[in-house]
Amino acid sequence: MIIVIKRDASKEQLMHFRSVLEEKYHVTVNSWQGVEATVLGLIGDTTQIDEDWVNAQEVVESVKRVQEPYKKANRKFHPDNTVIELPTGQKIGDGSLCIMAGPCSVENEDQINYVAERVKAAGATFLRGGAFKPRTSPYSFQGLKAEGLDLLKGARKVTGLPIVTEIMRTSHIDMFESVDIIQVGARNMQNFELLKELGKIRKPILLKRGLSSTIEEWIMSAEYIMAGGNDQVILCERGIRTYETATRNTLDLSAVPIIKKLSHLPVIVDPSHATGKAWLVEQMSLAAVAAGADGLMIEVHNDPKHALSDGAQSLTPDQFDKVAAKVFALKHAYDEIVNG
Amino acid sequence: MIIVIKRDASKEQLMHFRSVLEEKYHVTVNSWQGVEATVLGLIGDTTQIDEDWVNAQEVVESVKRVQEPYKKANRKFHPDNTVIELPTGQKIGDGSLCIMAGPCSVENEDQINYVAERVKAAGATFLRGGAFKPRTSPYSFQGLKAEGLDLLKGARKVTGLPIVTEIMRTSHIDMFESVDIIQVGARNMQNFELLKELGKIRKPILLKRGLSSTIEEWIMSAEYIMAGGNDQVILCERGIRTYETATRNTLDLSAVPIIKKLSHLPVIVDPSHATGKAWLVEQMSLAAVAAGADGLMIEVHNDPKHALSDGAQSLTPDQFDKVAAKVFALKHAYDEIVNG
Amino acid sequence: MIIVIKRDASKEQLMHFRSVLEEKYHVTVNSWQGVEATVLGLIGDTTQIDEDWVNAQEVVESVKRVQEPYKKANRKFHPDNTVIELPTGQKIGDGSLCIMAGPCSVENEDQINYVAERVKAAGATFLRGGAFKPRTSPYSFQGLKAEGLDLLKGARKVTGLPIVTEIMRTSHIDMFESVDIIQVGARNMQNFELLKELGKIRKPILLKRGLSSTIEEWIMSAEYIMAGGNDQVILCERGIRTYETATRNTLDLSAVPIIKKLSHLPVIVDPSHATGKAWLVEQMSLAAVAAGADGLMIEVHNDPKHALSDGAQSLTPDQFDKVAAKVFALKHAYDEIVNG
Amino acid sequence: MIIVIKRDASKEQLMHFRSVLEEKYHVTVNSWQGVEATVLGLIGDTTQIDEDWVNAQEVVESVKRVQEPYKKANRKFHPDNTVIELPTGQKIGDGSLCIMAGPCSVENEDQINYVAERVKAAGATFLRGGAFKPRTSPYSFQGLKAEGLDLLKGARKVTGLPIVTEIMRTSHIDMFESVDIIQVGARNMQNFELLKELGKIRKPILLKRGLSSTIEEWIMSAEYIMAGGNDQVILCERGIRTYETATRNTLDLSAVPIIKKLSHLPVIVDPSHATGKAWLVEQMSLAAVAAGADGLMIEVHNDPKHALSDGAQSLTPDQFDKVAAKVFALKHAYDEIVNG
Repeated sequence: MIIVIKRDASKEQLMHFRSVLEEKYHVTVNSWQGVEATVLGLIGDTTQIDEDWVNAQEVVESVKRVQEPYKKANRKFHPDNTVIELPTGQKIGDGSLCIMAGPCSVENEDQINYVAERVKAAGATFLRGGAFKPRTSPYSFQGLKAEGLDLLKGARKVTGLPIVTEIMRTSHIDMFESVDIIQVGARNMQNFELLKELGKIRKPILLKRGLSSTIEEWIMSAEYIMAGGNDQVILCERGIRTYETATRNTLDLSAVPIIKKLSHLPVIVDPSHATGKAWLVEQMSLAAVAAGADGLMIEVHNDPKHALSDGAQSLTPDQFDKVAAKVFALKHAYDEIVNG
Repeated sequence: MIIVIKRDASKEQLMHFRSVLEEKYHVTVNSWQGVEATVLGLIGDTTQIDEDWVNAQEVVESVKRVQEPYKKANRKFHPDNTVIELPTGQKIGDGSLCIMAGPCSVENEDQINYVAERVKAAGATFLRGGAFKPRTSPYSFQGLKAEGLDLLKGARKVTGLPIVTEIMRTSHIDMFESVDIIQVGARNMQNFELLKELGKIRKPILLKRGLSSTIEEWIMSAEYIMAGGNDQVILCERGIRTYETATRNTLDLSAVPIIKKLSHLPVIVDPSHATGKAWLVEQMSLAAVAAGADGLMIEVHNDPKHALSDGAQSLTPDQFDKVAAKVFALKHAYDEIVNG
Repeated sequence: MIIVIKRDASKEQLMHFRSVLEEKYHVTVNSWQGVEATVLGLIGDTTQIDEDWVNAQEVVESVKRVQEPYKKANRKFHPDNTVIELPTGQKIGDGSLCIMAGPCSVENEDQINYVAERVKAAGATFLRGGAFKPRTSPYSFQGLKAEGLDLLKGARKVTGLPIVTEIMRTSHIDMFESVDIIQVGARNMQNFELLKELGKIRKPILLKRGLSSTIEEWIMSAEYIMAGGNDQVILCERGIRTYETATRNTLDLSAVPIIKKLSHLPVIVDPSHATGKAWLVEQMSLAAVAAGADGLMIEVHNDPKHALSDGAQSLTPDQFDKVAAKVFALKHAYDEIVNG
Repeated sequence: MIIVIKRDASKEQLMHFRSVLEEKYHVTVNSWQGVEATVLGLIGDTTQIDEDWVNAQEVVESVKRVQEPYKKANRKFHPDNTVIELPTGQKIGDGSLCIMAGPCSVENEDQINYVAERVKAAGATFLRGGAFKPRTSPYSFQGLKAEGLDLLKGARKVTGLPIVTEIMRTSHIDMFESVDIIQVGARNMQNFELLKELGKIRKPILLKRGLSSTIEEWIMSAEYIMAGGNDQVILCERGIRTYETATRNTLDLSAVPIIKKLSHLPVIVDPSHATGKAWLVEQMSLAAVAAGADGLMIEVHNDPKHALSDGAQSLTPDQFDKVAAKVFALKHAYDEIVNG
């Protein structure tokens, strides 16, 4: 951490500030005296030093971190890729492309079983589906809740596909015990109380990026889970909020290689929520593969026109067949070209 | 709700869509046939119709709401201002200017009592202070928690100031029973499970605007609380996330008159979190008053340099004395000029 | 165009408004009377009707375009792809992948000739290079200007590569007569006077997307050029400004398929300016190809460390060799998978 | 300027980089050797050092400016407020509140003269009006051009109000010779060629903030004009582009005190363009005064319903009378409270 000291700071102020740093945070402080400014360099574990606190000091002009504020999620300290492996054998982050597909909301047994079988046949290795739905309006369909979870488990039994579904409150963690991957939605990315509780369990967590979260904040939320002892975090880029209205969100594919550089965690892409339009899903899925993503999360509905939520961005099973075939073909080519 | 139908939709498709609308949502559908397009106009309670669902229909080109999607928070249906009145007599939304002041985090008894007495002396009518703190990093100070709540209650006893403090999880609602105003932070504005639970209690809720929430989404979150039966919601503008880096967030003061037009709920402004800089608080507090705000939330710390969180934006009690005096003087002038 | 009329508008007001519409804009107005609102549907050429003007009318609640406000750039009226063909045979938009490569700024003869030969050898079909440079600071290097143009022409002579370079003022159009493709930079995307003048010449224009332009505004700027009679416009996505600071801009690859749907104009991607980081260029180039781009614009510098501008995002010729090889290989695979 | 060196840089690389800095930019380089990193501190005139260039160096981890990149516009070097004084006596930046009012577009003699007389009577000291109009669509009204300028001059003759109008191309500077204040619109804020030419004349320039410009970029554009020798720059905040759709732009009133701190130039606010809605102008004008603005720019039209552009945000003369009266009353109170 580099701290620039104000020009008009007195020697006494500066010495006092240095001793506070050393005593409070047990870091070593080096100083360099320039004409423009005095600069302090802090040596030691600076992740616990709050930048706000530093900025509030009377003598401080500005502060700059040299080290990232995350440790467990940091590739510098864990060079090897994290590979998530489920008891049933599916892997995420091992170089393969995983596809999580299914409806936005679970609606009934026929629907979820039919979609599950279709997406499995097309190559998906996980079934996604919402039982508890975060909706902007209290008057919109809120999901089938516990019944939805049961239907997902039923579809898992039928198809063998592990299930991914969203949790919305801490008190539901027990209810989600037999869920294979627990999803934290974009709106809960900084629900820190939920993250802390998910850190206590030993189950993969799919952490969606918040609507207006920086990449660093997103990794910090993964760090919350990991700090509790749960190392199995999968990051999911799902678009960020910008001024552009042609798409629901702006898909930030640069986030994929950046996450890969900064962290060892796997990262997947959700083109359905990012764009909000079914006709963009194929093209953005292909682009995500070429950006280096470890997987895709795609909404598939047997009958998008009658879907109880997010129908506008859902593919039909027939459309998904074609998308999946192209996506796997491109992944194959990509691997030969980039890694081959 | 106005729905534009695609040019290439067949008569059968259109008739089928109309009958689905009428049966599923019990609305009356009128149609107008143009050259450019066919347009449907829906009559009845359209708040339950999901725009996503409409957009997903094969025949639909686009959809436009004419009515706002909120009812209980809508000024159209409740023309009079909501005035929040506490058992101890303080009012918010009655035309007066309320100031909620205090430290970002409660740190110890001396601190909170001292700050409480100082802000009371300067004219604040509420004591704010964080006991549970949402922090980006799991390694940052997370608040004194239950002990912090006790210290706030102690300061209330000493000064008579009602207390405002942030809740971070549903399971804490019982613990917050004797808190006077429960704050929902920006990161939890769309924690719908929390909002639903807060709808079941009968206590004023201060709902901060999310970092990237539209004004409509913000009112919809108030609607979540109100839909549960709790009408006492205070909205708090605290800055939105933009590309500008000169301030922590961009304070959107236009939100104040817009909220006043769309809703009957009181709206206050938090210039401390919006700007992230103590030196901007005075000027932005004055601007908020002139924008028509019902109140201000201002961070005051006995010793910002040693604050355990957000020191950079806290005023000292002496600074707050001056700010409060100017703010009340401007409010007085404003009332004479605008309402007088 | 659909216009929703205010509930409290009188019959006389409404009739007056209708007759103004009909007389001023020569459109036919149909009206549909609902309970919620009265809706007008306009038939005819509504591209000349200003939405601001409509919104300003006392009787108007809101307005919604059904037709896009552009004609010449609109795929609806020109279903076939525009293919730009240079006198020297190079094509853009014909299904092939064109690469425009070269330094941010032309610096001297050896530099530009060396880079031109290297990028040609790697498969680039256009040489890019800045002679006039838009710089945020008046104290930064502003380009070699006329001398830079001469050096570009020299490099063209040596390599046969057509040249692409940025124009910054209308009075330079004559000076750019022998430039093959004239680039309009992001900061000038809405320099309408420049666009109008470029509409009068008959030379391909590369129109970069503005930092905060919507896709519709961007196409409208192309329409400015085309309205003047110059149909040869190439759109270039180069990242938009968002709150994210990990990259210089946020590359919006969804813009590629959206442009392809809305317009018949070719669209290329500039990953160098979008990300601002050389190490991201390869991955984002691959993603752009998979998003369906007609080409790439990539910065290559013989010696990025000593580049006079934008060195941080420039590839060395050796790095470019590898990127180009992978990009062409992926394009080949993509064509087989998607179009094959 | 503080430069953080990569951990793995060799001694030779570092020494080479230091000598390049010293020779190329004539600065003195101090280094401080930490465990985390080596840090270089540059002493001398670092405004000419391009951050991109520094970032491109192989040994550089990151770079941080300590000094602002602007000199002439910097309050540090010019502590006193710049006061713009017109030959006819009007002042901007002297502590008074100037109001520039008038129609978006000049439409005809009766209109402009009538509006000019009305706004003068209400207290405006400048007449604004567009002769050359930047429009998103080539099919929208583009202004009366030279005729519009003549009409403005006519209205000046009748009322004595100096005129403010927008220039859109360099070749028009001669035509604008008798304009009192030349406005540079938001879309041209980084039209550097125009800024350079305006630096050569000796006439006040009103520089609107770009739609997505940072405050620093905005001041840098003022610096472009000042670098040419023209010190008379007035900055105008007119809203920035964000995701919020309730207003046309988001008015960033925090920019006012920030500009006042960083620069000595006067800053005014345009609530009409910022909000895009006439009913918000009064409240945001009052807020701008309380934020410390030196003036306001307000659209007034004799007949907004028939305005040829931007009618939705124009006040009628009667509405302006009331707004101006309140605004001056609040300014009076503000001065007593804040400066008194």
